[in-house]
Amino acid sequence: MLKTPAYAALNGQSPLAPYAIERREPGPNEVLIDILYCGVCHSDLHQARDEWGGGNHFPMVPGHEIVGRVSQVGSAVTRYAVGDAVGVGCFVDSCRTCPQCTAGQEQHCDFGMSGTYNSFERDAAHRFDRSRPTWGGYSTRITVDQDYVLRIPKGMPLDRAAPLLCAGITTYSPLRQYGVKAGDEVAVVGLGGLGHMAVKLAAAMGARVTVLSTSESKRAAALELGAADFASTRDPATFKQLAGRFDLVLDTVSAEHDYNAYLELLKFAGTMVIVGIPNEPAPVAAFPLILRRRKLAGSLIGGIRETQEMLDFCAAHGVASDIELIDIADINDAYERMIRGDVRYRFVIDIASLKG
Amino acid sequence: MLKTPAYAALNGQSPLAPYAIERREPGPNEVLIDILYCGVCHSDLHQARDEWGGGNHFPMVPGHEIVGRVSQVGSAVTRYAVGDAVGVGCFVDSCRTCPQCTAGQEQHCDFGMSGTYNSFERDAAHRFDRSRPTWGGYSTRITVDQDYVLRIPKGMPLDRAAPLLCAGITTYSPLRQYGVKAGDEVAVVGLGGLGHMAVKLAAAMGARVTVLSTSESKRAAALELGAADFASTRDPATFKQLAGRFDLVLDTVSAEHDYNAYLELLKFAGTMVIVGIPNEPAPVAAFPLILRRRKLAGSLIGGIRETQEMLDFCAAHGVASDIELIDIADINDAYERMIRGDVRYRFVIDIASLKG
Repeated sequence: MLKTPAYAALNGQSPLAPYAIERREPGPNEVLIDILYCGVCHSDLHQARDEWGGGNHFPMVPGHEIVGRVSQVGSAVTRYAVGDAVGVGCFVDSCRTCPQCTAGQEQHCDFGMSGTYNSFERDAAHRFDRSRPTWGGYSTRITVDQDYVLRIPKGMPLDRAAPLLCAGITTYSPLRQYGVKAGDEVAVVGLGGLGHMAVKLAAAMGARVTVLSTSESKRAAALELGAADFASTRDPATFKQLAGRFDLVLDTVSAEHDYNAYLELLKFAGTMVIVGIPNEPAPVAAFPLILRRRKLAGSLIGGIRETQEMLDFCAAHGVASDIELIDIADINDAYERMIRGDVRYRFVIDIASLKG
Repeated sequence: MLKTPAYAALNGQSPLAPYAIERREPGPNEVLIDILYCGVCHSDLHQARDEWGGGNHFPMVPGHEIVGRVSQVGSAVTRYAVGDAVGVGCFVDSCRTCPQCTAGQEQHCDFGMSGTYNSFERDAAHRFDRSRPTWGGYSTRITVDQDYVLRIPKGMPLDRAAPLLCAGITTYSPLRQYGVKAGDEVAVVGLGGLGHMAVKLAAAMGARVTVLSTSESKRAAALELGAADFASTRDPATFKQLAGRFDLVLDTVSAEHDYNAYLELLKFAGTMVIVGIPNEPAPVAAFPLILRRRKLAGSLIGGIRETQEMLDFCAAHGVASDIELIDIADINDAYERMIRGDVRYRFVIDIASLKG
């Protein structure tokens, strides 16, 4: 076993603090990755603070936006070589045999994916091994099956690539699922870690993007990111002016808000995709859905194949996250700043600060 | 003008009573229809009793499930001849130029369809003429543009065809939109006028249909209509046993119920389509949508082309509504029985009883 420095939450109440974990030597099909950067996702905070109800496992080493370099490969590894720049996203394994796994939608595995942290490794039959928790990227290295590893395209800045593994694919996948193309009208609701990626990606696909935000102060930033338009959702006129405008509304907000108001912004047969998770169910009226044949849909990150496609798309279009690089010692402060929305747009931990 | 006996609600509080209206002589592109049968839709009751908020126009002659025979044709009419069996559904006109009208989705006309009743006729430019209300099928004849008239296929019983014009197309369209095919698992929620058509149509498409109903007493009837299975929604075990089972959930219920429980019955990427309109918005949780990439969608009747396709499909598969034929004088009692769910499955008015 490989002794590995990490940061962990010992329970849902304690701040993250240094913690030592062990990583396994890579098996035949695995690679050992020397982690360079790890993005900080809002769901890290929710899970580390035990906010999403039961089922969280402590001690918890968060982090599922991992970029690093391969430092060792198993005997059967064919896809990666030592020194390759690679990424690991939200999951590190799945059953590999259910309809979704075989269709490349491993995140929807019938038996549950092995989350990169706060979950379990799998046994030889690819069933959960509840004696072996998964630990995430707030650590200096990780051992992962090559089939669940992504290639970071050449030339992409590695720190700015890290958030693509979650925030990037979470917004890329629904844009693709609903066939966003040049000239489409796309609304992005919320301009945080997810929203800023949604703007960049939809604009790179040729869509005309409108950012809808409670914060009028984000107007200039939205336009700079590639949005064609911005509208404040605190202004009731916004919902009248933009009624029936959009082919797709991509809603990244996890604070409570009125879905019906946003559904009314869709064209005939348009879709509103939610990727944010409000704490409480949101009331949905039948009329906005029925009268214009609209849909309210959910989407969850993306499969391995689609994540690689997204990375390659980003490389081809010069898209990467806008980040603020932090030391691991600043992680608890970073969580507080995330709660206040004080980050443009994603914190990324420089894992060198953990190697000391 | 043609003096025409009808039944009308003079206001939202008064019962339906005899009322005389005038129908116009058919214009060049119009046909005059001698009405034989008119189905009784739950929305007749809602509108006649002014229950859906403002915007109802009185006196109101309800009825949008009309079947009759052409008795006179305009000089430019090419599609229909005197004596043809024809139908009129939920609308009698639309703008004819918006994207939905040109795509055959006239029910989603950008300027609003001309409802068969409780709406307005259109002027020469196909804009609403607010001086000319539309009156529905609780009357002995109606004048309609040939482009908004359906052909009742030969051999179809005319009384049992009437409810197809609303209940039939309302359930046929979403089954087609979401590509229901042989072997698909389809749940039909609610076994009333809409639900019983949904069962027949989905079964005729080869789907394996499960009826979900609060009334265990409807089990035998559901199986008789063509359902393969029945489950009581009062039994909490139902929602565990059927979790993740269905490709499509077609929800015909307008009483309040928990959408989230039904969303959990969908497979990966399945869709729940609502065609019932509860009075209050229903809380929708993000997790059931996101974790399995599900969709909650609305659907509204169907366009003229699709309604004709539905009628032809029904004729080819021997599908028609199960009805209880009533005299017009029994309409107020029929409304009370509908509220109690005491009808299998649709009242149809024998308009001969109005001709007296």
